[in-house]
Amino acid sequence: MELKQYLEQTANKVDSLIHQHFGSACDDLGRASAHLLLAGGKRLRPALLLLAADAVNRGSSSNVVPAALALELTHSFTLIHDDIMDGDTVRRGVPTVHTQWDEPTAILAGDVLFATAFEFICLADVPDNAKVRATSLLARTCVEICEGQHMDMSFEEQDDVSEGEYFKLVEKKTGALYAAAAGIGSILAQGNPRYTDALFRFGQGIGMAFQIQDDLIDLLAPPEVSGKDQGSDLRKGKKTLIYLKAREKGLDLAQFRGHLSPDQIREIVSRLREIGVIDEVQETAENFVRKGIQRISILPDSEEKSLLIQMGEHFIRRSY
Amino acid sequence: MELKQYLEQTANKVDSLIHQHFGSACDDLGRASAHLLLAGGKRLRPALLLLAADAVNRGSSSNVVPAALALELTHSFTLIHDDIMDGDTVRRGVPTVHTQWDEPTAILAGDVLFATAFEFICLADVPDNAKVRATSLLARTCVEICEGQHMDMSFEEQDDVSEGEYFKLVEKKTGALYAAAAGIGSILAQGNPRYTDALFRFGQGIGMAFQIQDDLIDLLAPPEVSGKDQGSDLRKGKKTLIYLKAREKGLDLAQFRGHLSPDQIREIVSRLREIGVIDEVQETAENFVRKGIQRISILPDSEEKSLLIQMGEHFIRRSY
Repeated sequence: MELKQYLEQTANKVDSLIHQHFGSACDDLGRASAHLLLAGGKRLRPALLLLAADAVNRGSSSNVVPAALALELTHSFTLIHDDIMDGDTVRRGVPTVHTQWDEPTAILAGDVLFATAFEFICLADVPDNAKVRATSLLARTCVEICEGQHMDMSFEEQDDVSEGEYFKLVEKKTGALYAAAAGIGSILAQGNPRYTDALFRFGQGIGMAFQIQDDLIDLLAPPEVSGKDQGSDLRKGKKTLIYLKAREKGLDLAQFRGHLSPDQIREIVSRLREIGVIDEVQETAENFVRKGIQRISILPDSEEKSLLIQMGEHFIRRSY
Repeated sequence: MELKQYLEQTANKVDSLIHQHFGSACDDLGRASAHLLLAGGKRLRPALLLLAADAVNRGSSSNVVPAALALELTHSFTLIHDDIMDGDTVRRGVPTVHTQWDEPTAILAGDVLFATAFEFICLADVPDNAKVRATSLLARTCVEICEGQHMDMSFEEQDDVSEGEYFKLVEKKTGALYAAAAGIGSILAQGNPRYTDALFRFGQGIGMAFQIQDDLIDLLAPPEVSGKDQGSDLRKGKKTLIYLKAREKGLDLAQFRGHLSPDQIREIVSRLREIGVIDEVQETAENFVRKGIQRISILPDSEEKSLLIQMGEHFIRRSY
């Protein structure tokens, strides 16, 4: 099977669970909690969880679909709270929750999804010891995501962010939830500890690559391809890997904070290409994926293993 | 043993765990998460959890102390988020988290405590099936608390709140976490389902009484006794049971919204006494406690059962 087809199938499965549980909320808080979930999404974390389960124990994924949804709920919770903190007004083509409702409702909507994620982990049809380990891992992961978001906000006021600090941030903010998705998939499918560890590291690596690729897309992709505002990180002066590598080579991107025309962005991009920043950043993302794939080489060969590898490669080839 | 002595012992146990895990945070987010926990608190929910465990299975409480802490973490998480929504600036004699730090940090600090609560449930030294049930119950409870807080905010703009709606609010906002404390204590101690259900209902009832008593204290207790601002609910026009009962008798407390002198408050209180509102509200709280105590009459007699009964009675006799 091709990855694209697999992702579509998973998204359908997850979407139908979402509609079943969140589609008919009849009060304001219920609708606010469901808002982003119903606005779509690629459901990559659920797909990773299901693939990991089948890769260590073929056929087990059908027992862990509620846990796959739990990962999507957790993701949605972090988006709702992050949007409040970052003051973002649009996400997935719809107004953010605190924009459509208000901040108190958005705080509560995030909290509701967070709590519901733990309920869904417990609904997986697997032995209790696996659910307890999965619950602990999800809880620890959420702490890391919060730490990552806090680092992200602190870095905005900090000029001397190092690459090491940047990688720590990306590991927590994006790598941790992909790591948890793959790790929980293996735990719930009773994968042996070596497989679980390998899948956890794989998820972490491709998750970090995903974030770096996101930063590249923000800079390189025209809005008609990405659906996002081109160069928004530049305008905000965000400390991305692109920013740090450019600074290393004497180009201070902080000077471009504020308004930028499409022509100016094109100019900055070609300057960054000339001095080798784009290539180096791309290489970094590729390295994270390559090392991740290396980790799961210990898994027995299977269609799911090959889909996992395709997923890793997709994360650094996607343009949106 | 007297209840007072038992509560002191529990508070010491919980405080020492809190200091161990949160006392040496070296970053901003860690300190913000620990802030309210370290400012003290009566640790009533942990005490209820431990008493429930021992009441169904003597000696089992020593295995469930981390779960008792989980209840306090959950409570602290809801306080931090509620304080943001309600715009409160002081709690437990210290500035609220969003006042001392900022709103984003307070949102994240709450999220961190929430996640950590689930980690601590999993650290109890009990069979995994009990942990899974406790996790599910805690998660469901958190959804209810959020719904309760949302109702509370909606009621501020709603003039026709009924007593039924008020009781639903109090059940979710305050009753649910006390119900969970007692229920989780019994679940983790392997209490039989009838005991667990009885303790859950007991916790719910005394929790609701606790909230009603809180409203009475707000109105009746001078600040030097309660440590709180007398009559703050009156000034805010909050839809407490006092408000609803007064309205039933033709006295509209909404007219006293805004500034009120101590003399005016005294006058309103004697009016409320005259028309029987205070007595009726006190009786309602007493009824919740009485019915709760009735529920746990099926438990075998023990020192812990008698402490539970004392706890219920304390909830409606306390003046702070």
